Amino acid sequence: MNSAASRESAEVIVSQLQEIVGEANVRVSDEDFATFGRDWTRAVDPNPVAIVFPRSIEQVQAVIRRANDLEFGIVPSGGRTGLSGGAVAANGEVVLALDYMNAISGFDPIDRTVVCEAGVITEQLQQYAEEQGLFYPVDFASAGSSQIGGNISTNAGGIKVIRYGMTRDWVAGLKVVTGTGELLELNNGLLKNNAGYDLRQLFIGAEGTLGVVVEATIQLTRQPHDLTALVLGVPDFDALMKVFNQFQSGIDLTAFEFFSEQALQKVVEHQGLARPFESVTPFYCLLEFERLNEHVEEQAMAMFEAAVEQGWVVDGVMSQSLEQLKNLWRLREDISETISRWTPYKNDISTVISKVPEFLVAVENVVNARYPDFEIIWFGHIGDGNVHLNILKPDSLDKTTFFEQCSEVSLEVFDIVERFGGSVSAEHGVGLLKKPYLKYTRSAAEIAAMKAIKVVFDPKGVMNPGKVFD
Amino acid sequence: MNSAASRESAEVIVSQLQEIVGEANVRVSDEDFATFGRDWTRAVDPNPVAIVFPRSIEQVQAVIRRANDLEFGIVPSGGRTGLSGGAVAANGEVVLALDYMNAISGFDPIDRTVVCEAGVITEQLQQYAEEQGLFYPVDFASAGSSQIGGNISTNAGGIKVIRYGMTRDWVAGLKVVTGTGELLELNNGLLKNNAGYDLRQLFIGAEGTLGVVVEATIQLTRQPHDLTALVLGVPDFDALMKVFNQFQSGIDLTAFEFFSEQALQKVVEHQGLARPFESVTPFYCLLEFERLNEHVEEQAMAMFEAAVEQGWVVDGVMSQSLEQLKNLWRLREDISETISRWTPYKNDISTVISKVPEFLVAVENVVNARYPDFEIIWFGHIGDGNVHLNILKPDSLDKTTFFEQCSEVSLEVFDIVERFGGSVSAEHGVGLLKKPYLKYTRSAAEIAAMKAIKVVFDPKGVMNPGKVFD
Repeated sequence: MNSAASRESAEVIVSQLQEIVGEANVRVSDEDFATFGRDWTRAVDPNPVAIVFPRSIEQVQAVIRRANDLEFGIVPSGGRTGLSGGAVAANGEVVLALDYMNAISGFDPIDRTVVCEAGVITEQLQQYAEEQGLFYPVDFASAGSSQIGGNISTNAGGIKVIRYGMTRDWVAGLKVVTGTGELLELNNGLLKNNAGYDLRQLFIGAEGTLGVVVEATIQLTRQPHDLTALVLGVPDFDALMKVFNQFQSGIDLTAFEFFSEQALQKVVEHQGLARPFESVTPFYCLLEFERLNEHVEEQAMAMFEAAVEQGWVVDGVMSQSLEQLKNLWRLREDISETISRWTPYKNDISTVISKVPEFLVAVENVVNARYPDFEIIWFGHIGDGNVHLNILKPDSLDKTTFFEQCSEVSLEVFDIVERFGGSVSAEHGVGLLKKPYLKYTRSAAEIAAMKAIKVVFDPKGVMNPGKVFD
Repeated sequence: MNSAASRESAEVIVSQLQEIVGEANVRVSDEDFATFGRDWTRAVDPNPVAIVFPRSIEQVQAVIRRANDLEFGIVPSGGRTGLSGGAVAANGEVVLALDYMNAISGFDPIDRTVVCEAGVITEQLQQYAEEQGLFYPVDFASAGSSQIGGNISTNAGGIKVIRYGMTRDWVAGLKVVTGTGELLELNNGLLKNNAGYDLRQLFIGAEGTLGVVVEATIQLTRQPHDLTALVLGVPDFDALMKVFNQFQSGIDLTAFEFFSEQALQKVVEHQGLARPFESVTPFYCLLEFERLNEHVEEQAMAMFEAAVEQGWVVDGVMSQSLEQLKNLWRLREDISETISRWTPYKNDISTVISKVPEFLVAVENVVNARYPDFEIIWFGHIGDGNVHLNILKPDSLDKTTFFEQCSEVSLEVFDIVERFGGSVSAEHGVGLLKKPYLKYTRSAAEIAAMKAIKVVFDPKGVMNPGKVFD
């Protein structure tokens, strides 16, 4: 937005937005641009033309209709916790921030559903559910900032997918404003509705490229009973998979996470946490289940002992209180924040569970072969085949060189992902950062179909332009 | 297909199909037309031009490409157990029957997935899962005939949706041949894959209007432990909902079904079954859970006693063996077959669970007001808001008049469905029979979007023409 012409057009856009939402709800300061013009990624600098804060569905519709008339792009913005640049406005777009559409209403105890405006923060919904004696099970590190609209638009996953699925599984109804400004009310909160294509599913995970999620009817469930965690030290990855298979066959797990000794060391050192036990092993898994009765606990203990006997497990600890449960979880959950000081290059990749061990070895080999001095931190969700590859920046490299080198090695990593039939973005979405790599997971025909579907809902291409695909 | 011209074109079509699949795999007899040219509905007479039995994905692709060249319609055909006419070929289409593409392969015990060709029969998959010590949980009366491809294309539901969801929830990967003959391999069996729009979801429940499901990677789960059923007699529908809410809050139910005294009477009389207990009540519910331990059974008993004390339940019985479990289930599962002798007019409607009681009263009122001599048999899946309205034909009416009168009252029923934000087809799909009523559940904008999406995958409109929408 540097030319005189575009400045003029920016003024026109801002004044028209002010007409729709009022002056107070349009912001144009550099500070606001820096805050609302991007997500947690820092690869691309924000450069929006304005931030608009609608207060109603009608205002969202009016903004999108104006975008069609004046041909400006719209970047929907939730909690801005994305890791793929899906909410970055770098090309003079208008950021449509849902922050003030954040009411929770319409709770029904029999349906166990609640109606959330898009700007409701995940934690706010979790707390609301708890107040009703119920549970919203989708949970992840950014729950304190991420918003329901953004969760839906990215089909957020997290640490309980093995038991509760992704955000997709909790959306009983959806109101979206499409790229033409039309309001679609999809599925009305019904559990069963086989009347034509389930368009709701298209908008879940579309990263705002088809329209804006403005409201959702969210399914809640019963609260878990007496959650119990086991942290086990395992000698290698194959053993980890054997432990997974063993426990999964007998106990309904709510989580099965893993992390490496390197990850544990860093978390223990920097978060002031105690190691779970004396033994040092290459990998650890954290598994969680509901202690529905004493029998489950006995079963878990028996499985643990059998695993030790088989040599799959070296050491282990089971939580005996809520506090211990929380502390064990911190060993896994604090990894991301802890390693952020090493400017990690993150990849969020997946394959089918059974291929994870082979997949990890293949990925490590290419990274080590190219850059033997790079430290790799592995952690993630074994129970659903999703691993987070974090490459730490050596002190000796500047950030730009490091990211360049990582990008190069990424191509080889994505070759492996493709060979394993995996995903280049298991749960973080495509946004800007994964766009060049979409072809490793989706065929040309699939991408062509996606583009054609976008035209159905957003014929002028105003919605989150340049995200997911070009 | 009565004119000389169309007979000639029929010959061309048949000969070209024979080129693709061989002579033995194209059938043109009236008997085959009667068998393969329709589903369980009998409202429309079949009139296909040929039945083709492909043996490979490549043959499916070739048939669809030929359909594009010669401009003939294709009706994909699975187990032909549909209740909405989705698999009826009444206008000279080619029926593409998946019966011989029925291999099961690629089982993985860690992923708990299995690869099924479209023609695998539901029961065959259930048995296969059991042989592996696992469980395929989607179950319904037609499991002995229905095929996986058809289940996916109609997003089949059934009697365990409250716990296990619909077919949609068990499709980890999908191979489809689109209306242009292109093969799409969707999702590769991944549990987590947020790389672009989830096109897989579009084909699930599309009733073959976008393409043909040729193969699926199906998720299996652990076997249920010691299933136990309770049948309870309740004085009215409000009490039924209170019982549902009560049990749901404490026990993970695998089913919560209901049926009326009229339904019970007919099943007992015609199937030679014993009544569950002496007491006669207007409604009955069948609830099922896993007896994971003694505590669950005690909890169920305590809930039962509390419900009796509250006046919500009049009488009840709990299964103490697998045989008793099966017999109690027959009270519910044999209803459909039993009432078929009265030529029932069936509606498969849903609303959110909390509104079901009010919804039932509203529907009964309109039917009773118009046709006081019609007997209504209610049964269905309270746990997911899906009720089956069956109107029995009085002996005094001929079939044609009866169905005409039912169609008239259906418009009023669908007005109620619309007012309740419900679905005109909860689990049976739209096909031919529900097509005129789609607008009661989907807005004009939604239907327009569906049509535009169809054009993306089937630009020449060869796939199941005239189904779901015109």
